[in-house]
Amino acid sequence: MEIRNVESSDYYVISPLINEWWGGRQMSDMLPKLFFDHFNNTSFVAEQEGEIIGFLIGFMSQSQQEVAYIHFVGVNPKQRKKQIGKQLYNEFFTVAKKNNRNVVRAVTSPVNKVSIAYHTKMGFQIEKGNKEDDGVSVFSNYDGSNQDRVLFFKKVD
Amino acid sequence: MEIRNVESSDYYVISPLINEWWGGRQMSDMLPKLFFDHFNNTSFVAEQEGEIIGFLIGFMSQSQQEVAYIHFVGVNPKQRKKQIGKQLYNEFFTVAKKNNRNVVRAVTSPVNKVSIAYHTKMGFQIEKGNKEDDGVSVFSNYDGSNQDRVLFFKKVD
Repeated sequence: MEIRNVESSDYYVISPLINEWWGGRQMSDMLPKLFFDHFNNTSFVAEQEGEIIGFLIGFMSQSQQEVAYIHFVGVNPKQRKKQIGKQLYNEFFTVAKKNNRNVVRAVTSPVNKVSIAYHTKMGFQIEKGNKEDDGVSVFSNYDGSNQDRVLFFKKVD
Repeated sequence: MEIRNVESSDYYVISPLINEWWGGRQMSDMLPKLFFDHFNNTSFVAEQEGEIIGFLIGFMSQSQQEVAYIHFVGVNPKQRKKQIGKQLYNEFFTVAKKNNRNVVRAVTSPVNKVSIAYHTKMGFQIEKGNKEDDGVSVFSNYDGSNQDRVLFFKKVD
């Protein structure tokens, strides 16, 4: 497996894969092409024999100088348990540190238990929100009406 | 009218406004909260008597050092013809130049004739794509299947 920076043209491979990897959920709208054009130096693709098996789209916050933000991570469900996600996150932590960021942030939905467990395993902490959902602290209506979110952060300095 | 930088909390005012201003089209998904958290120093709000009447969300491309990118602009349809958009764009051009960017880019749909006419009036040129749509050069499937786009650029140096 190789990890490299995202290229603009990867959009046309990854975008159709997303809905497939998420079991038909309409997720690709969350990742318009601009993320493949303007954040290449902090976004990564994992490839095996020329096939994309995982990716991480992240950026250095432009207005919060200490923050690096992970927007979207996907791994081919047939390729799980191979530490692909872990390697992508580690690549991002490295680039965050190089850019003098001391905290990496990410956001997920409370229903996404796999993501919550995964981020916790990767050393992320959960920010205290304004209510609890199934034992997890969440921010209610964070991403709009009825769109509660779990906010993660991890110190990387 | 006053123009100021976007604040994180503006998301909760602007997001519900978007679908209203776009006549019920589901547009707010294009503008998740992250744009209000991480690009505040290059995004602007126009306010009149404490009411938001327009906004521009843009950023400095992180991987294309010469490019500044405008992601989303909205003006209250009841407040058109008051140069609100023009002032927001000019504010963005100024911040782009301050950040040593020499080109501002933006993307729109070929169906959005108002946006095409507006960008042209504001001095944007249209990048030559791979086909024509109603006399306008477009990039076919640029933002996914059947999602043709018009690409604008404007030199600001």
